Parts: sequence; C-alpha cells; structure tokens
Amino acid sequence: MRKFVSERNLRFLLYEVLDTESLTQYEYFQEHNRETFDMVLETALKMGRDMLLPHLEEMDRIPPAMVNGQVKVHPIVKTYMRECGEGGWIAANAPFELGGQQLPTIVTNSCLFIFSAANYSASVYPMLTTGAAHLIEAFGNPELIETFVPKMFAGQWQGTMALTEPQAGSSLAEITTQAEPTDAGYYRIRGQKIFISASDHDGVENIVHLMLARIQGAPPGVRGISLFVVPKLRPDGQGGLTPNDVNVAGLYHKLGYRGAPIAQLSMGENDDCRGYLVGEPHKGLSYMFQMMNEARIGVGVGAAGIASAAYYAALQYTRERQQGRKLTETDPAKPAVLIIEHPDVKRMLLFQRSVVDGGLSLLLQCSKYADLARVTQGEEREKYALLLDVLVPVAKTYPSEMGILAVSQALQCLGGYGYCDEFPVEQFFRDARIHPIHEGTTGIHGLDLLGRKVVMKNGAGFRLFVAEVQKATQAAMGYPNLRNYAERLEAALNSLQEVTSVLAQMGQQRDTEVFLADATLYLELFGIISVGWQWLLQAMAATIKLEGPLPEQDVQFYEGKIFTSKYFFHYELPKTEGLVKRLLEADGLTVRMNDSLFWD
Amino acid sequence: MRKFVSERNLRFLLYEVLDTESLTQYEYFQEHNRETFDMVLETALKMGRDMLLPHLEEMDRIPPAMVNGQVKVHPIVKTYMRECGEGGWIAANAPFELGGQQLPTIVTNSCLFIFSAANYSASVYPMLTTGAAHLIEAFGNPELIETFVPKMFAGQWQGTMALTEPQAGSSLAEITTQAEPTDAGYYRIRGQKIFISASDHDGVENIVHLMLARIQGAPPGVRGISLFVVPKLRPDGQGGLTPNDVNVAGLYHKLGYRGAPIAQLSMGENDDCRGYLVGEPHKGLSYMFQMMNEARIGVGVGAAGIASAAYYAALQYTRERQQGRKLTETDPAKPAVLIIEHPDVKRMLLFQRSVVDGGLSLLLQCSKYADLARVTQGEEREKYALLLDVLVPVAKTYPSEMGILAVSQALQCLGGYGYCDEFPVEQFFRDARIHPIHEGTTGIHGLDLLGRKVVMKNGAGFRLFVAEVQKATQAAMGYPNLRNYAERLEAALNSLQEVTSVLAQMGQQRDTEVFLADATLYLELFGIISVGWQWLLQAMAATIKLEGPLPEQDVQFYEGKIFTSKYFFHYELPKTEGLVKRLLEADGLTVRMNDSLFWD
Repeated sequence: MRKFVSERNLRFLLYEVLDTESLTQYEYFQEHNRETFDMVLETALKMGRDMLLPHLEEMDRIPPAMVNGQVKVHPIVKTYMRECGEGGWIAANAPFELGGQQLPTIVTNSCLFIFSAANYSASVYPMLTTGAAHLIEAFGNPELIETFVPKMFAGQWQGTMALTEPQAGSSLAEITTQAEPTDAGYYRIRGQKIFISASDHDGVENIVHLMLARIQGAPPGVRGISLFVVPKLRPDGQGGLTPNDVNVAGLYHKLGYRGAPIAQLSMGENDDCRGYLVGEPHKGLSYMFQMMNEARIGVGVGAAGIASAAYYAALQYTRERQQGRKLTETDPAKPAVLIIEHPDVKRMLLFQRSVVDGGLSLLLQCSKYADLARVTQGEEREKYALLLDVLVPVAKTYPSEMGILAVSQALQCLGGYGYCDEFPVEQFFRDARIHPIHEGTTGIHGLDLLGRKVVMKNGAGFRLFVAEVQKATQAAMGYPNLRNYAERLEAALNSLQEVTSVLAQMGQQRDTEVFLADATLYLELFGIISVGWQWLLQAMAATIKLEGPLPEQDVQFYEGKIFTSKYFFHYELPKTEGLVKRLLEADGLTVRMNDSLFWD
Repeated sequence: MRKFVSERNLRFLLYEVLDTESLTQYEYFQEHNRETFDMVLETALKMGRDMLLPHLEEMDRIPPAMVNGQVKVHPIVKTYMRECGEGGWIAANAPFELGGQQLPTIVTNSCLFIFSAANYSASVYPMLTTGAAHLIEAFGNPELIETFVPKMFAGQWQGTMALTEPQAGSSLAEITTQAEPTDAGYYRIRGQKIFISASDHDGVENIVHLMLARIQGAPPGVRGISLFVVPKLRPDGQGGLTPNDVNVAGLYHKLGYRGAPIAQLSMGENDDCRGYLVGEPHKGLSYMFQMMNEARIGVGVGAAGIASAAYYAALQYTRERQQGRKLTETDPAKPAVLIIEHPDVKRMLLFQRSVVDGGLSLLLQCSKYADLARVTQGEEREKYALLLDVLVPVAKTYPSEMGILAVSQALQCLGGYGYCDEFPVEQFFRDARIHPIHEGTTGIHGLDLLGRKVVMKNGAGFRLFVAEVQKATQAAMGYPNLRNYAERLEAALNSLQEVTSVLAQMGQQRDTEVFLADATLYLELFGIISVGWQWLLQAMAATIKLEGPLPEQDVQFYEGKIFTSKYFFHYELPKTEGLVKRLLEADGLTVRMNDSLFWD
C-alpha cells in the first residue's frame, strides 16, 4: 500500500505542537478527548486507505460524463457520500442538536487532509456539502434548515456553492442571475453559473445549490446580491421531489482534479426554477464571506494533501532507485547508491517536506483559531477571529502555490518516470494546479490580505499576528540549538513590519494602485514568514521531546523535524530577502506599464 | 490565427542585439546575408503557422499508438519530415558538400524556436535527426556517412539518441547494452534502452539509432562505452532493407509532449541486431558529449518556445476578458475593465515575457558562440568554445525551469479557463514539464556547471563569462536610464564571483560533497545573472534605437523592451539575494541529512 500521509506527523502537530486537547476545556467540545480524536483520525486513515486511494487513478482516467442529460460519476462517489453521511463526517463540526458531532475543525481538517491526500477529487463532495449546509444552518429559516440540512448531512443530497458566472469570475460584483419575487414566497431564478463543482451527479439523490443572485431592483454591485437555496429537485409539497428547471449546460474538461464534475448550469430555461431566500435580501455576499474562511482553509488543506501524497511517492522511489555514486567515490566498479543518498535529492525531499508539514501546520493553526473563535467570547473571541481573518489568505495560498512546486520536485525525483502515468505523481502535478485558482485566485488573496486584512481595524489583526510570532521567537531563544533560527525569523518579521508600514502609509495617502500593485509578492513574503513561525514551533516541540529518553524511531522523527526546520531557515527563509527588497521599492512599475507596450 | 511567437522580437534579437550579420564575414557563412536569413525565418514562420500549429491539439489528444508492432503517429509527422528534408531544414547547418546549407545555428535555432512554439512535439522529429546525423558526419567513416546521412538529411530516415537504460538514467556509467564484435565488421547488439524519443514511427521509412553500448571486455564506467549506429532496418547489401532485430517493447504514456512517441527498445531478442561502430572503441561518451551542447541548447529553445506560445495565448485572453474595476474606481455601475489593466495581471505578463525573451536571447547568444567556435581558430576559437561550455547548462536550464513557472502564470491569467482544455495553455503546462528532465536533469546540469565548467582550465571559462557581462555593464553605464540597472547587475555579478570563489576553494580542499551540495542553487543564481546580462543588452539596443525618430509601433516595441528589462531588474534580479546568502553558508546541511530521518 502506497503511503500518502504521515499519521505520526498529524499526531505530532495536533498534540505536541498545537495542543488540541486544550480545546476540550470548552463546553462545545467537552464531550471529546484525545481518545475520540484518535478514533476519528484512525477511521479517516482507514477510509482514505481502503475506500479512496484505490480509486484515485481510475477517477482520473474515467472522468465524469454526461449521459442522457445527467452527470455520471465513478460509483465510489455514491459509496463515499453515503459513508460520510452515516459516519457523521459531513456534520462533524455541527452542533449535536442538528445531528452534528461538535468536533473541533482542527481535527476534521486533519481528516480532510487525509482524504485529500488519498484522493483529492473524491474529498470535495462531502466537503462542499458541509460548507453549503453550514450556510443554511447559520442563516436560513427553520423551514429551510429542516427541509435541506438533514438530507445533506446524511450524504443523500449534495451541496454546492454557485457563485461564478460567465461575466463574473473574480469579480462577484458583476453577478446578474436574477431572482424575481413571487407571491408564493419563493423567487423565480433565471441565469447562468459556470465552474460549479459537483453541481450534478448520480452519486446522490439531489443537489442543493447555495446560489448568489440579484433580486429584481436590487442596488448594483456587491450590495445587491442575495443568497438562495436552489435545488435541482424541489419538494413538491406532497413528500416527493420534482425537477426545478436547473439544467446542466455542459461539463468542463480539466487538466486535473478530474474525478469531480465541474459544470455550467442554466437556471430557468422553462421559467420554472424556484429559489428560496437565505436570510435577508441583499446580504448574500456577507453571508458567503462568513463561510469563506472555512472553504479557503479547505482548499489549502487539499493542496497540502496532494503535496503530501506526491512527497511520499517520491520518497519511496528515491529509496528504491539506485543510480550514480557518491561524489567522493572514484571506483566505477562499485555498485550504484540509492538516489536518496545524493545531497540534491535530499534537498528536493526536504523542500517538499517543508512545504507539506509547514503548510499543514499553518492550516491546523488557523483551524484552531476558528475553533477558539467559536467557543470564546468578547475580546478573546475578537482576537482569534482577527488572527484567523489575517491568516486565511496566507493559509490558502502558501500550500496552493508552494504545493505546485513541491509536487513538481516530487516528479523531478522520479526523473523520466515522474513524467509517465505508471506513477501517480504526474496526476498530482495536474490535480495540484487548481488550487491557486479556485476559492479566490492568488492575486485576489494578495489584495484581500494587504488591502483589507492587514489594514483593518487600524492594523489590529496584523499586530496580533506579529505578537504570536514574537511569542514563538522569544520562547525559542531559550533553546541554544534554535536561537539562530529564532533570530533569523525575528529579522524577517521586522522586515515584514517595515514593508507593511511603508505600504500602509502609501495606502493612506490614497495611492491605492501603487499600494496594492505588488500585493501578491506581499502575500508570498507573509507566507514564508508564517510557515517559518510554524517550523520554529515544530522545532521547539521536537527539541523538548529530545531532552527525554526516547525510543530510536522517535529520536529519528524528532531529529527529522529539526532537520527539516533547519532546511526551511537555510533555504526558504532567505527568499524573503529579495521580496523585501522589491516591496520596499514600491515604485508602481506595473501600474505605469501601458497596455500598448505589449503589442508584440 | 493564434499568435505564438513575435517575429519582431526575433529580428530584434538577431540583428539589433546579437549582430548576426557579422557572421557572414566568415568563409563558412559567406554565401548568406540578412536577406537569406530573413527568407529562412519567413519560411519557418509559414511552416509553423500553416503546418504545425493546426495539429497541436490533435497530436496531444490522439497520441502515438502501437498498431501491429509498429508505432503509428499523426499523419502530419510524415508531411513535416518530408518537408524538412526537401526544404533542407535537417541539414541546414551542415556543410555544402554533404548537401547542407551552412546556415549559422543562431538562425536555425531561431527557426527551431518558431517550430517548437507552434508544436513542440512535432519539432523534435527533424531536430533529433539533425543531431544524430551530425554525430555520424563528425565521427563516422565514409561508408557510414554515405549509407545513413543522406537519407536522414532527406527526412526519409529518423535519427535518435539511444542512451538511457533501465538501470542507467542520469548515470551513463552504468550502461550495459552489449556489443559483441564479429568477423564481418559489424557488432552484435543485445540490450534494452528506455525513454528513447521518436524511436519508432510510421512517418519515416527507417529509424537510425545512435546508440551507446559496451564492447565485450571493455573497461567499466564511462571509459568503456562505445557509439554505434543501430538501424531499425539494415541495408541487405542488395540495395534493399531488412529488419535488424530492434523491437519496440512498449510506449510510455506521458503527462505531455504526447505528439512524440517515447519508447522502450529491446535489441537482439533474436540475436540478429547489428550495430556499426562510430569512430574508435570506448570513445562513445566523448563523441556524444561533443554533440551534447547542440542538443541541450535545443531543449532550452523548446522550453522557451512553449513558454512563448503560452504567453501569447495569455496576452490575447487578458486583452479580451473584462473583469473587475480599477482600484481607484468606486462606482459599481461603471463597466468592468480588461483584465490586462490590473497591475497584478501586468506583472504576470511581464514575468512571462521576461522569461521568454530573456531565455531566448541567452540561447541565441550561445548559438552565436557555437557558430563562432566553428569558424574561428586558435585562441579565439578556444574563447568561444569555453564560453559555450560554461553557458550551455545555464541556457538549457533557465528556460526549462522558468518556462514551467511562466506557463503556469499564463494559465493563471486565464483563471478557471486556463485549467480547461478549451484553451491551449493546459497543454503547454503539461508539455513544458519535460524540459528539466530530458537531456540531463537540472540537478545534473548544476553539477556540470559548478563541478566541471566553472572550475575547468583553472576557471578560464568563468572568467571569460564575467568579462562578457562586465563589457555589457560598462557599456550600459553610458546611458543614464540604464546606469542603475548596470549597477544592479554588476553587484549581482560580484556576488556570483564571491560565491564561486568560496565554493571553488572548498572543492580544492577536497570537500567535494559540500562543494557541490547546492550546485542546483548555484545554477539558478547563474541563470538569473546570465539572463539579466541579456536583458541589459536588449535594453541598451532599444535605448539606442529610441534616440532616433521612429514610427509609433517601433517606439512602443522598444519601450516595451525597456519596460520588460526594468521588470527583470526589479522583480527577478533580487531573487539572487536569497540564493547568494544561502550559497555562502556552504554548510553541507543536506550532505549531513541522514536517510533514516526520513522514516515518517
């Protein structure tokens, strides 16, 4: 069986770095303890290994297809959705009274990591359902909740997020799907949606779209967008279901992530598509944004998951493939060594591992903030919510962007074989490429981080982040082997503060375009420092453990952690230098570049 | 018709930056002039546009297949090979007396750039044939030349390079294919080859493998390898051809580059495979290496070509797609702008253009050195040959590695559409990934650059390179608008010299593993500086032109050049800072990382 995640590493992050058990002191999580968390993890590992992994390649080779107007997907989707419903996975974070399990998201995101590492395409079906159900649960009226949420939690109905339109991709302000009020309480929906994941398939009995649309006469722009439940089949009032005039106009043929159907939808072709308003009119986008953090962390987790699977495939290959000799070996008659003995191969593996474990650590850190924001009150709640808001674009983007490079290095470790479909890495290379695009492109997240999150509330969230990193560097200074790394991180953090202050001033002087021109680079800088912070925390946890007597395997694990942390500080953190240099120039070079200069 | 290369840019590089016309002062090229070069370029553009581009996607969707033991390829391959034979493309660089055209490689590589931008898979068939024919022509006896070369130059017989074996990928020392001498002059060949491009197909009448094998009793390692011509069909002595026991054991299913068949070959299954020795026994690898520069520049050109095609696809999209508003626009009722107006999109386009035009410039610079090394003598020849030797790993790797990132940014410019096969960019993303693998992986080229090229002849080649860059920076200092960039490049060059001296000392102290542990990063650093040098040369040529009166379109072109150069110095050159910092540490971190620490 091919390894795709490290269970040991998950436990290390959950219990030794991020103190997940401390969450059980809060009432919402008090029914849980380490044993229940471990049980959940073990079940997830078993499902990943036995249910998802075996179908990874087949789902890629035989993608969803339109058959008689309906999308047909791999049969495992039906099994998996049912299992996720019955096992309580879709409702795992939801309150008991809604049939949920009140599990912390730090635990469920660990499971999502396992699922996406095993089979990313499969993992999105229940995840999307959770997100859509959560929206109804949070903002819908009791009737909506009762009608839709239980079926979704049971895995019988698929949930989707239906935002994008042909003329409205990154810019949701352009949404034109219309909602015409009727006397019967529902709205008549007319419009087109594109790039909607899992928006039709035969693995479930019904599809529930959480759809953004504009009520007739609504104000233009983002302030006139409302949220609707638009099912594929609507309740007919007699306990049955009837078609709701939601039509699949076509499926996209994608580079990767092929096991999940992404479709164009056309609503109201026969003027008979009903939508049910969620919450109040014109507040759709604000509802959506409140759920966005969850979805964006989910994308980061998926990206880290794919990179994890690629890393372990590469690791296995480099431990089996013999090629070349040590540079110090001059006798050509000596047998070849395993390629993992070559320093450059080790460098490629350490890079991948630093991205996977570092990215995952940041994602679980964010998940913990989300959990704490859920269960705390007042100022404390505000603190965690702000930290989460600041870090979400970073935690979404770092694994998404760096995951592509990590998978590419995994492919490189396999040489020519990496480029061929006998090994799974070429699929991971294709699958991974979606992440900087969906749930907000990297460019959008750069703008979100610098233009909104870092400056909001007069920089309060940013200052909280700085304080968290400083807490870690100060603690690490107490360990002689980590002092040098703590100092390096502190220096990088100081640079980030300087850059932020220079840019924020520019923003205050209303030079908005120059202020935000290099927001993507700012996001990259922020990402390296955030992951550096997580590597320092990991190195500290490992150092503490190594002070006591340990079995040999544990010694190796912790030393491997410290080594990977060193790799990060020696190879990845220096990348901040060039970024800082560029960002401090803040000269608006790209703002001034005139389109006409691109003519040839 | 989709644009895939800039003809204007090719002429700029050839005539305004690299002074290609100066080559015609040498006897070998004296039959040529700018008019003949232009004619060749125009024909290549026409072939790219009319013959290759229309089949790009079909060759990807319907890859080569085994039919009755023979590989069947797209019918355009036959047409193209015939056209390349009849049009003199395969023999373009060869001497007149062999039926060649004595064209400079700077011109033929410009054509290869056009062909590979139009359809990379198609472009490799004639290119491989040129390389294989060149080997026979350079080292074979007259009978071999007469038997094989004319048919290859005519495009009737395909040439291949058959090096790799299952146990010998990057390490050619492990080659075990056997050659048993016979009394009849030929050798009996037995063995396996893998990953052999274009090694069987129905677009030609015969295949001619230039194959490395070991004569029975040869010394182990690289000093016991010989070069053979091993045809698929051998001359039967009566003017006909007969099967030569070269069997296709299987085709690889690849991530991209699918229009060209890559096969496993099995020789001598029926003990009837004949090989004809090229040159002297045991010198095969040295012959191969003498031709390697050519093939490696070819790979770089292919990588730059794919990135060019992706860039123009992205450019077109960003000029047609409306989305979002200027950040300074607050009225949501205002129509959306073209996405090329967003600074971050311009940054992504400038990045791509800096890689494509900068990489191509370096490749053509190398081609010119190859031309000069061919036509000069003594010290002058030595100088150009050394410059070429130093720069080949760089010119192969920079476009290969950066091309992947450039294509990925092209894909990003198209958002969700970039991920779908309605647009060609997802194919380019797959096609581009081969280049850091074939013709020596990036890791191998790092070792070649630092461990061999930079230190050879006591650093003579490296000093020549430094002098060339300094010549450019000193000249650029004379232009006020370029002084700042010349200074930046000079500073980076000084850092490179410092790093080189620190590492070379380490190499002399026999700490070989630490010396070469970060050779890949050294190659990356070298690449940025080399391409920065080319951008300074381009900016200087453009500045000079802008001093005179020019038509508006020319003004835009030259200003675009200067702008892209600025982009490079502000965004790409700063990446050297982190690399220099890391390289100066030279602490052997990865050398010390023990395999056992990777256990989980």
